[in-house]
Parts: sequence; structure tokens; C-alpha cells
Amino acid sequence: MKIASDVAGLRAALKRYRAEGKSVGLVPTMGAFHAGHLALMRTSAQEMDRTVTSLFVNPIQFGPAEDLARYPRCPESDARQAAEAGVDLLFTPGAAEMYPPGFRSRVEVAGLSDRLCGIYRPGHFSGVATVVLKLLNLVQPDRAYFGWKDAQQLLIIKRLVRDLNLPVEIVGMATVREKDGLALSSRNRYLEPAERRAAPRLYQVLREIADRLAGHPETAIEPVLAGARRRLEKSALIRLQYLEAVDPETLDPAGEESREVLVALAAWIGSTRLIDNIMVSRHG
Amino acid sequence: MKIASDVAGLRAALKRYRAEGKSVGLVPTMGAFHAGHLALMRTSAQEMDRTVTSLFVNPIQFGPAEDLARYPRCPESDARQAAEAGVDLLFTPGAAEMYPPGFRSRVEVAGLSDRLCGIYRPGHFSGVATVVLKLLNLVQPDRAYFGWKDAQQLLIIKRLVRDLNLPVEIVGMATVREKDGLALSSRNRYLEPAERRAAPRLYQVLREIADRLAGHPETAIEPVLAGARRRLEKSALIRLQYLEAVDPETLDPAGEESREVLVALAAWIGSTRLIDNIMVSRHG
Repeated sequence: MKIASDVAGLRAALKRYRAEGKSVGLVPTMGAFHAGHLALMRTSAQEMDRTVTSLFVNPIQFGPAEDLARYPRCPESDARQAAEAGVDLLFTPGAAEMYPPGFRSRVEVAGLSDRLCGIYRPGHFSGVATVVLKLLNLVQPDRAYFGWKDAQQLLIIKRLVRDLNLPVEIVGMATVREKDGLALSSRNRYLEPAERRAAPRLYQVLREIADRLAGHPETAIEPVLAGARRRLEKSALIRLQYLEAVDPETLDPAGEESREVLVALAAWIGSTRLIDNIMVSRHG
Repeated sequence: MKIASDVAGLRAALKRYRAEGKSVGLVPTMGAFHAGHLALMRTSAQEMDRTVTSLFVNPIQFGPAEDLARYPRCPESDARQAAEAGVDLLFTPGAAEMYPPGFRSRVEVAGLSDRLCGIYRPGHFSGVATVVLKLLNLVQPDRAYFGWKDAQQLLIIKRLVRDLNLPVEIVGMATVREKDGLALSSRNRYLEPAERRAAPRLYQVLREIADRLAGHPETAIEPVLAGARRRLEKSALIRLQYLEAVDPETLDPAGEESREVLVALAAWIGSTRLIDNIMVSRHG
């Protein structure tokens, strides 16, 4: 595996891939790899001739009170794991390489960015969209791989790619979970032992909602969500931020007539904010 | 010359160019071609293997009170002139092709977009940047050609391309003028005869400013601009909107220490808004 820490090195490697007519997959990440990241890399390595992974903790997607400084960084083990997963080229730019002096451009996906997490993290999805657009332009991959764990991010990027006519296929891959159901996240390592024991409750509640709604178009959504919110709030360690059912295309609140519904939540457990979601098909 | 009115037709033609290893130049336009547009096309045709011109009156760059509806449209003569100028492929999408239902993305170049014309045309440069980004993604040209007549647009696009790591060279070409100095513009055809006779005054005044400032770093800028504003306002037909000297990189007001200065103006002549500018080097 080759490592490029600047744009020039990245472009040189990509030029060779293109000259050889190789297909290219991109897995954009912020590092601190877990099995979810590695599944994206392995899938790209299987499907594409060459796999590029970017590792960049993107400052412009963190709010001023968020965890940019303490976000986990483990470049050596990340590089080792990426190589094992079949990555050909690891792109590890610094912030000055991505945002040199004079940088002023931002991309915004109106509407989708100010729902769900966007309410609590203003500017977050604009920062995500901007860095992903830069990475797509830099790498010009045939496919780019993202996890469904960050469902809102995935849907915003799909919209962005369609809207801006980017010639890339966005692939969304299933959330990878611990045996107890907790969605893998680089932030799980922040959890104290008691918090870690409480955390699987988030996905249990999502499963309970799915069991109530899936295949039951006659069941009203809001009472099911309200019951689930009450059950979550019984846990002393969990502070629910939101639990909503939305249209997966528009992120508008799901109506009783909605058949495909994204049920998504965010919650604080101690000083760690976790998100999770489940897709529910309500066709009878 | 081939004409493609949809994205599929455009991509099919471009695929052939790329398979043949041809270099591609793009000239984005809103049609109503004059000698300025044709100079861009001819230059691209000389420098590049294949030249694509887009002809799209971009609704999202017009304000609600602006001239979208009356903007001149002359598709037949445009196509004939483009072919004569050496264009290989004319892309003429409709608005629904560029902005299908659900479209929500916008790109913003903060700071540069809210100076000069941006003060009077809120949203204009975001609309320009968004459509140009789409066209650059659709065509993926090696070079794209723009006129210095729209200096702020050119500088915003250069910044956007750098910021978003787009692999394209932006070429700025000198403003083409009538014999009396009036900058060519598709909007000049709106001018009544008396207005047309008054219009060259705009460039005369820019020339007078350049004569005073060029090579004279000791000359204070603001008094020269103030005198020029007074002279322009003597014309009964001209209503000056702004006349400013700015740094061509940041569009911040030029300081006395500035050596390269963009002097730019906008003015109403009757119901027609015209812009013009001149670059001044104040090196002694």
C-alpha cells in the first residue's frame, strides 16, 4: 500500500491507475478504523481494480464545542489495517493541504442538511458535503463507499452527486454492529464501561420500533415513536436528542401513508454522542 | 457541429472524445453570442482538440426582479455562429435537465460573492458558481474559458476551482470592445439609440482612472475614484451603481499599498444594467 500525504502524491498515483485503465473505488474516512470502515474497504477492493482510502479528520464538519481535538487518531494502526483490507493508496492530507489560506468555498444541500442531526450540529453537513466534494474531485473514483450508519450523510451525498452531475456511483453499505447490536463507531471508545453496557439499548429500541411498524401500514407511527422515546428515557445513562421517522429521500417527517421510513436517533451517553438508524418497510 | 440538448447526449459525445484521447475545452455561455463569446470559442478551438460550448440561460443566477424573461434568446443564429467559430459540440439543456425536481444543492464562495455586483444581486454568484460547477462536472474539460468582462465571476470561478480541487485550467480572456470602447454584452441590444451613445462613457472613465493610477503608486486611489464618480453622474442617462477599486484576489477594497488593482463598475443606462472593469498595475 502506498501512502500519499499531499495532493501531488495522490494525483501522481491516480495518474498511473488511469493510464493503466484501472477502475477506482474511494472510501472517505476520518480514521480510527473499525470493522465498519474495513468492510467498505474490502468491498471496494473486491469490486474495483484500485482502492483509495482517505484519512482526514475534517475540521470544518466539527462545531466549536464538539470533539475535534479529542477525536481518536491512530495513524499507524489505521495504515496497517487499511493495507490488510486491500487498500492500494491511503491519502492522509493535513488540514493546510485541504484548506490552504484563502479557502472560501462551501457546498450546501438545502433542506436535507438542517433536519435530524443538522438541527443540533449547524454547519456539520455543509462541512461534510464540502470535504466529500473535494475528495471526489481529487480522486475522481468510479465508485465511493459510505456506511448506512451515517444515513443522513449518505443521503446528502447521494443528493449532492445527482445535483452536481458528478460521474460517480455512491454505494451505501449496511451498518456493522457489535454482537449486542451497538453500531460500530469510532466514538464508542469514549464510552465508560457502564455507558458501554447501556449503549445497545439504542439499537434495541430501533428494532422494537421496526417490529411494530414493518409490514403494518395500519399502525400509526407517532404513538410507536412516543412509546420508544419514553422507554429510552428510563435509562439513567441515556439522554435522547431525537428519535424521528422520516422520508429517506427528503428527510421530511414520515406521514401515515409513507411506506419506506428511516427511523433515526441521536443520544448522549455520558459525554459521547451516538447515532443510529433503521430502515423500515411498511408495505402490508 | 453536434448539438446535444440533454445530459445523455452530451456524455455520449464526450465519451467518444475521451476514448480518442482528445483534449477538451469548455466555453460556458448564456447564448446571444457576440464577438466576445466567439473569441472564447475560437481560442478553445485553436488550443484544444475538441471544443464544447454550453448554451443555458441559468435561471438560478437571476433575481426575481431581474431580466430572466427578456434575456435575449437566439438559438438558430447562436448555433450557426458557434459552428463557424469551430465549436464541435453545443450543449443546450433545458432548465428541467439542469434542475430536475428535488434539486437542492448550492455552492457558495464566501466573501467574494457578496462584494461589488454581489451587493446588488444577492444569490447571483451562488447561482453562477453552482451552474459552472455542474457544467465542469458534466464536461470534465481540460480548460474552461471565461471573459474578463465578468471579472468577479471569473475570480469566483478560479477560487472555486482551486478550493474544490477541480482538475481544470480556468482561462480568462480579455474583454472584447466596440470601436468606441463599449464592452460587448448580450445586454447591449437592450439600449435605445441615445443610451447606446452614452454607454461608451463607462469605459472612458475607467481608462481615465487607469491613466491616473497606472505606474503611480504615490497617487491616492479614493480621490481619483471620487472624481470619476462625479464625472459619470453628470451624464443624464447614466445611473452609477458602484465604482470601486479592489484587490483582484480577495475583492477587498484596494489599499494605498495595493499594486495590482481591479477597478470595476456597474451602472444603469435606462432599464439596462451594464458592468465593466479594468486592471491597473500601480508599480512605479
